[in-house]
Formats: sequence, C-alpha cells, structure tokens
Amino acid sequence: MLSKNTLKFIKSLHQKKFRKQEQSFFVEGSKNVTELLQSDFEITHLLFTPKFGAAHMDLIMKYSGDLIEVSEQVLESLGAFKSNSSALAVAKVKQEIPFSVLPGELILALDDVRDPGNLGTIIRIADWYGISKMVLSPQTADVYNPKVLQASMGSFTRVHFFYQELSDFLANSPNIPVYGAFLDGENIHHAQLTSDGIIVMGNESQGISAEVSKHIGHKITIPAFGKAESLNVAVATAIICDNFRRTQP
Amino acid sequence: MLSKNTLKFIKSLHQKKFRKQEQSFFVEGSKNVTELLQSDFEITHLLFTPKFGAAHMDLIMKYSGDLIEVSEQVLESLGAFKSNSSALAVAKVKQEIPFSVLPGELILALDDVRDPGNLGTIIRIADWYGISKMVLSPQTADVYNPKVLQASMGSFTRVHFFYQELSDFLANSPNIPVYGAFLDGENIHHAQLTSDGIIVMGNESQGISAEVSKHIGHKITIPAFGKAESLNVAVATAIICDNFRRTQP
Repeated sequence: MLSKNTLKFIKSLHQKKFRKQEQSFFVEGSKNVTELLQSDFEITHLLFTPKFGAAHMDLIMKYSGDLIEVSEQVLESLGAFKSNSSALAVAKVKQEIPFSVLPGELILALDDVRDPGNLGTIIRIADWYGISKMVLSPQTADVYNPKVLQASMGSFTRVHFFYQELSDFLANSPNIPVYGAFLDGENIHHAQLTSDGIIVMGNESQGISAEVSKHIGHKITIPAFGKAESLNVAVATAIICDNFRRTQP
Repeated sequence: MLSKNTLKFIKSLHQKKFRKQEQSFFVEGSKNVTELLQSDFEITHLLFTPKFGAAHMDLIMKYSGDLIEVSEQVLESLGAFKSNSSALAVAKVKQEIPFSVLPGELILALDDVRDPGNLGTIIRIADWYGISKMVLSPQTADVYNPKVLQASMGSFTRVHFFYQELSDFLANSPNIPVYGAFLDGENIHHAQLTSDGIIVMGNESQGISAEVSKHIGHKITIPAFGKAESLNVAVATAIICDNFRRTQP
C-alpha cells in the first residue's frame, strides 16, 4: 500500500538535501531497478507495474520488503522519467569507506565534473573497463542524483565512490603513477601507460585545477587529427581508459 | 532592427518542418556563433548582446548583413538555451551533395542514431579525429536540431552530412572496407584496422539493423573488462575512431 507519507518521501529524494538527510535515493526504469535488485544495496521500497511484476517475478520475490504494485501514472508522477512503464525503487545510500589503491589497480579521479549526465556516463565507462573505484572531488555532481543514476545504466551498483579533496587523496597515494588529462600532455598513443594508476579527469570547462595538477606525474593528451578544440569529458575518459586497457597482457 | 516577423521566423526554426521549409537554422551561444562566423555558411541574421559585440568586433564586421544588438532576455526568449549572454545567428542550410569515398578516407555512417545529444557529440568526435564526411540514415536525428548543434560545439561547420538509406550507400561503395560496431565482433584491440574505411554505428537500443548488417564486411567490438552491458553510442564511436587513428603512420 502506497501511503501519502511514502509518496512525499520519494518526491523529496529529488533533492540532494533530503537524499543526504534520509541517506536514501531512488532509481527508476527497468534497467536500473533490475540491476539494483541484483546488487547488495538495501532496498526500502519497490514500486512496480503489473507488467514489470510479471516479467521479473523471480527477481522481485527475492526482495523481502513491501511489494507495491502501481500504475505507470504513479511512477511518472514520482520519478524524473517522462515515461516509466516498469518500476521505481528506493534504497539506502552506501556508507562511504575511504579506500586506498591496491597494487595493479586502475582508479578514476574526477576534479569537479559538474554535469550529472557526464558523471553517469563516466560511471558506465568505468564499469565497462573494470574500474571499480572512483574518487570524486566535493564539487563533482552527486552520484545519487537521478540523472546520474539514469545515465549510469545500472553501473553505479558495481563502482565504489569516495568524495574527497583530490589533492589530499593524491598526496596520500605516493606509490602509484598519477596520470591527468590535459590538452598539452604526452600523446597517449605513444605514452608508456602502466596497468595500474590513478587517472584524473578535469572539470568540463576549466579542466584540472592548478592545485590538483601539482600531484600529477604524467600529463597525457588524446591526439587530435581534425579541428575540434576539445572533447566532452566522458568521451575523453572512455578513450583514455581504452588506451590504458589495451596495454594489458 | 528586430521585427515581429523576424522574431516569429526564428522561433519557427525550433521545428524541423519549418527548418526544411525555410532551408534555415539557428545556432546560439558564443562558441557556435563564432564558429559559424568563421565558416562558409550563409548567415542571414546575427543577433548579439553589447558584451558579445565588444568582444568579437572583428569577426562581426566581416559579416555583411544586418547587425542586430539585443538583450540577453531577447536571446533567451528566441533560442533553446536557458541562459545566453552572447549571440544567436540564423544561417541557410547547406545544399546536400551526394558524396563518394575518396582513397584513404575514413567516413562515419549512422544507422538511426535518434538522440540529438548523441548525434551532436558524434559530430564533435568526427571533427576531432579528422573525419569530414558523415552518412546519416533518414531516421537519424536532424543535424540542424538546436540540441545537435549545441552538442557539436561548432564542429558541424567542418563536417559534411548526407542523409541516405545506408544500405544503398554501402551497396554503392564497393571498393572500401566497411566496419560495423557489434557486441560480438572482432576485438578492436587486435583487429587489423585499415586507415580508410566506412565505420557504421547503430541505433541506441537496436544497434545496426539486419538490412544494413548485410553490407558490413568487418564486425568489430570494443572489448569489455568489467560488467557494463554496453556503452553509449557516442562514447563507442570515440573509442573506435581512436583505435582507427592510432594505426596511422
């Protein structure tokens, strides 16, 4: 049964302030909800249409909380999607655990990536390339923003996030190569890329800040063959990850 | 002087129907307008704020048509941007000229890429990698859609577009390798990629259609190292272009 309080609660989660206060977030759409159901996130509410229920009965039965069958109209009134014929789930935010870098590991660090669509796309790219840890500067978009989660296509369930000042994080990671994407670095097609490292990507318009730059040992650049001035940050992240992974045995 | 008819005319260009009827489109924002002023597009209207005028006087003086100084509010009421403190320009659509593939050339072909943001991002990627010709299936988004132009960041001025049924185009391009992005093709990290060719990218959810697939000689795949099911089509295009260009001398 869907109470007025639950409706109000879910709607409040559109705002970062309430996501933080309630330590909760929601995802919507078939892809994200099915990924969430298969993850170790603690789900507190599961709302779904009869159609979604019929298609995913096995998955839904594993969830021990209340099952709330609703119409598409209710889902659309609650979420951020224009149309949603499947489901919406609320889950608890995961406790952030500071992490250190393990030997052989590749990690992504974002210096103020502000656009939620870019962050979500980068999470999906990280997951594609087997990168399971991301360090995010405090000004980077909120991972639990509905637009971030949507663009991540479920990949947020497989990546660990840690918000910290990047200069502090990098200062405390002395034994690993730190790469940063610049417009005037070494051509990644010719650079010797190690299989472990921290890859720092900068803000959409400012790039990597001067403060963070001090900690970067290897400036790298995607070579241009035409006249575009720059690439979108998510696109650049993908190209760089691909170049790192092709060096693997 | 900005007449009511001009206002009405510019507003009509939000719709594909009127862009086609008038053979005109508009771009907005400093980046796109300055790129347009430096291109060979025929500009018919140039609206700008005093601030933009002061910053780009040289560029503006090269334009021989009417100069219309307006407020930010006027720009924002006309365009698609929430905020626009710079300029908006209207130009004539370029005559589409069917093109054939020259020796050594790399070309992008899109099979029903529907999202305007994806198409614009792909145009920017093509321009970065020096690809100056794109073939677009009739169901692909309209190049002159304001969202496409915005995401292209001015790169639309340096790429030629040709809308045609891809199966016809590929059938008439017999002497060039045709590559297509699939989830079950040859690993691009190990494939022998030629420096010339046509790269076909598919629809966001359906991929490359069965009809178009018949014309593809080389199925290629971006190798996955993690668990994401797929990559965004613009991201995949960038990775594939990067792999092609790294084979160049």
